Amino acid sequence: MAKAPQHAISPTREEDYAEWYQQVVRAADMAETSPVRGCMVIKPWGYTLWENIQKNIDRLFKDTGHTNAYFPLFIPKSFMEKEAEHVEGFAKECAVVTHHRLEAGPDGGLVPAGELEEPLIVRPTSETIIGAMYAKWVQSYRDLPILINQWANVVRWELRTRLFLRTAEFLWQEGHTAHETAEEAWVETRKMLDVYADFAENYLAMPVLKGQKTPNQRFPGAVETLCIEAMMQDRKSLQSGTSHFLGQNFAKASGIIYQSREGREEYAWTTSWGTSTRLIGGAIMTHGDDDGMVMPPRLAPAHVVILPIFRKETERDASLEYAEGIARDLRKLSTPWGGPVEVIVDRRDMNAGEKGWEWVKKGAPVRVEVGPRDIEKNAVFVARRDLGPKEKYGQGRDDFIAALPALLKEMQDNLFNRALRYREENTRDIDTLEDFRAFFTPKNAERPEIHGGYAMSHWCGDEACEEAITKELSVTIRCIPFDREKSGPGKCFVCGKDSPGRVPFAKAY
Amino acid sequence: MAKAPQHAISPTREEDYAEWYQQVVRAADMAETSPVRGCMVIKPWGYTLWENIQKNIDRLFKDTGHTNAYFPLFIPKSFMEKEAEHVEGFAKECAVVTHHRLEAGPDGGLVPAGELEEPLIVRPTSETIIGAMYAKWVQSYRDLPILINQWANVVRWELRTRLFLRTAEFLWQEGHTAHETAEEAWVETRKMLDVYADFAENYLAMPVLKGQKTPNQRFPGAVETLCIEAMMQDRKSLQSGTSHFLGQNFAKASGIIYQSREGREEYAWTTSWGTSTRLIGGAIMTHGDDDGMVMPPRLAPAHVVILPIFRKETERDASLEYAEGIARDLRKLSTPWGGPVEVIVDRRDMNAGEKGWEWVKKGAPVRVEVGPRDIEKNAVFVARRDLGPKEKYGQGRDDFIAALPALLKEMQDNLFNRALRYREENTRDIDTLEDFRAFFTPKNAERPEIHGGYAMSHWCGDEACEEAITKELSVTIRCIPFDREKSGPGKCFVCGKDSPGRVPFAKAY
Repeated sequence: MAKAPQHAISPTREEDYAEWYQQVVRAADMAETSPVRGCMVIKPWGYTLWENIQKNIDRLFKDTGHTNAYFPLFIPKSFMEKEAEHVEGFAKECAVVTHHRLEAGPDGGLVPAGELEEPLIVRPTSETIIGAMYAKWVQSYRDLPILINQWANVVRWELRTRLFLRTAEFLWQEGHTAHETAEEAWVETRKMLDVYADFAENYLAMPVLKGQKTPNQRFPGAVETLCIEAMMQDRKSLQSGTSHFLGQNFAKASGIIYQSREGREEYAWTTSWGTSTRLIGGAIMTHGDDDGMVMPPRLAPAHVVILPIFRKETERDASLEYAEGIARDLRKLSTPWGGPVEVIVDRRDMNAGEKGWEWVKKGAPVRVEVGPRDIEKNAVFVARRDLGPKEKYGQGRDDFIAALPALLKEMQDNLFNRALRYREENTRDIDTLEDFRAFFTPKNAERPEIHGGYAMSHWCGDEACEEAITKELSVTIRCIPFDREKSGPGKCFVCGKDSPGRVPFAKAY
Repeated sequence: MAKAPQHAISPTREEDYAEWYQQVVRAADMAETSPVRGCMVIKPWGYTLWENIQKNIDRLFKDTGHTNAYFPLFIPKSFMEKEAEHVEGFAKECAVVTHHRLEAGPDGGLVPAGELEEPLIVRPTSETIIGAMYAKWVQSYRDLPILINQWANVVRWELRTRLFLRTAEFLWQEGHTAHETAEEAWVETRKMLDVYADFAENYLAMPVLKGQKTPNQRFPGAVETLCIEAMMQDRKSLQSGTSHFLGQNFAKASGIIYQSREGREEYAWTTSWGTSTRLIGGAIMTHGDDDGMVMPPRLAPAHVVILPIFRKETERDASLEYAEGIARDLRKLSTPWGGPVEVIVDRRDMNAGEKGWEWVKKGAPVRVEVGPRDIEKNAVFVARRDLGPKEKYGQGRDDFIAALPALLKEMQDNLFNRALRYREENTRDIDTLEDFRAFFTPKNAERPEIHGGYAMSHWCGDEACEEAITKELSVTIRCIPFDREKSGPGKCFVCGKDSPGRVPFAKAY
């Protein structure tokens, strides 16, 4: 058996975080780049995680009264132009369809033909096309609220891409709701942010801060943008979901007008909210370690992988049979969150060590080795992915099975608590510009990836102070926490004016 | 209460089938056209049916060893060109992306800018881009088979569109597999056709014929195309799923080469298979009646709709409470196919008759009215959507609940048997050109929509005979049934040459 490398992933997180990330995505076989510039291929192990994300978050949407529908991939250019800030925000990254067929060109190859009267934009987001439909559907206050979500692909032309984190095409969901009153739309905006936070923390085991964006970082056309932010293991922040209060901006652009209870014509109040395959990048960067991916058990594509061990051909059948028996019993169980325990018996004819390392890199929560000696003792040899790859332990077969749901719960909690501790250890109250600069300046020139984390600092509310900091240090205010005032008042560390409370500054993806 | 119209849908199927179809889609609130030419909006009631189709067929794919993945929306033009027949088949209906941003034009409006070096095609199907990835993934016979499915949107530029049946953008799944041997690829091609037939018959309650396409109607680039065909209520045939044996054509185009067990370099053998939102059109045209949609219970967005009846405000609370109690008990049940019984309590303040008709048009399988007199008797008033809208019957509350799963099963069987009977009544053995012409000639000039159905006729195998018939009567061979020879040999009704058995000719969507 080949000697196991010290770490399955090279470089390690400390050595080169960005490259470590790419290597984990590859080693876990979750996605890869495609020959189409900026577009990724999501491979089965990554896509199954996405399916589990979809299934669970979709349930949360339905439990809060939403239904799904589907709207066109293409948006006529004139629709995008209806909301000035919106089109300005997306014009630089639009894939534009201009022709509707190919025909033989002068040199024999095929060339675009059948030019469209009006160019179509491949949707970067769907406020304008969905708004046009809502304008048709809404006549009276009785038609409100509309509470619809769409699962879709969207395209934002990006030149510098990173798998899951920033790609030209990505998969997401976008909720679009229309309401009778501003207050009701606000309640919706907050409610969906809470759904995202619930999902991030209780399913992805990824602790998040909740708050509202500063004006600089609002969604183009929104009145307010709320967000959840999570700290990755390079101490940078990942925006992981946004919920927008759109006021009447898009209702005015699209003509969503209803007759009110008082008989007046009014514009509806709308919201939109989205999260995407970026969550997969967040899960990798929150839980992954120097041996690869670590799947949060609640969303893992499989919970248990059983590896039958045999050295001689004569041991083969017995090992496989024993493994399948355990799998059968495990599949009868429910996870602590409902739904069946998913089990893979890896029957491939391969070196057992190699096989085991493959599942370490893929982040399967529990690995179970079963060989002739285990069969003799009616036992199993267990490895938990949240512990080191060598901390394996023997356990009676039936005890292992009986304890499996509780083990999954314990691991899920461990992952969350570890991530929370990491965030807390890398969050500091910072009160002077000098300390702030030091916090965001690499201490070690040989390890430039190490920087501060979240600086909790006072801010006066002036965009100019934020911009100065962003320009100097590439640091932004990630959000204005809803409970900002809990930290007490102080003075803006940039200009010295009054601040009602601290806000988190960080480098971000 | 308004007097119910004789039929909820106008025109009826007999009066104008094509228009009846559009009216059912609208009355059932399943989809509508969008401002984007050829693209539809799938509304919540239609989309929930699609979700149920997806969930169930996806389970069948997984049970046959497939996993899901996701590939790029865009295909570089040069990839499409790799397979000559393939690009020829799709060139006339390609949406082409030529630019990647918008910028201010000379007249102030935005114009496409940032021209791409190579145009990108919005995928009409993904053989070529997926083939390029498989070429990277496959080195040795050990890497085979690859058994992957993708759920995606695709675009085929259509000028004459019809909701669900023919739209520029539609939702579908496309399976793409690669194998070591021709035989294994053939087994896969047949297996997935069987999955489609199983799904059509046992879930959609839509009887189908299985067979292979004649060369004229193969998928562009395929060696053989297998299909399922269903008869709609205008006696036309709807191709409802296809499974293609691609031979080594796409492996050669994409370079999917593996080292064989004997150490030789070989091209892989590939298959692809797909079905789409067109199935929804098939369900409407198979089961819908002159009162609207009829949902097959196994896939219905909701199984039971409870309508609380109250004339006076004082009766309101009691009716609602009684309705919610029934809903609670129903939700504890499982359908005969597993999964919960889905129940809607329609609490809206609306005329009860109007409400009831809305659910008739939407095709909810079981409607239950509960009013003061029912409460007194601890009873319910039941209407089955597979019977006439006035054939309602009273039943004891608990008896109704206990019998509901069996009722759903009975209704599902009824729908299938009714559709099968319809097909059988409209299928005839036809042996002469004269009879064939008569069969496909409208008997009544005022009812031009009535034509023959399936003509089971002998065919020699010569494409020229099929083409002559198609040219004259717009009738095609829908498939060559696998059990064709059961009908015994005969003479081609066009040219008189030998035929090994009958094949179904029909007009088609």
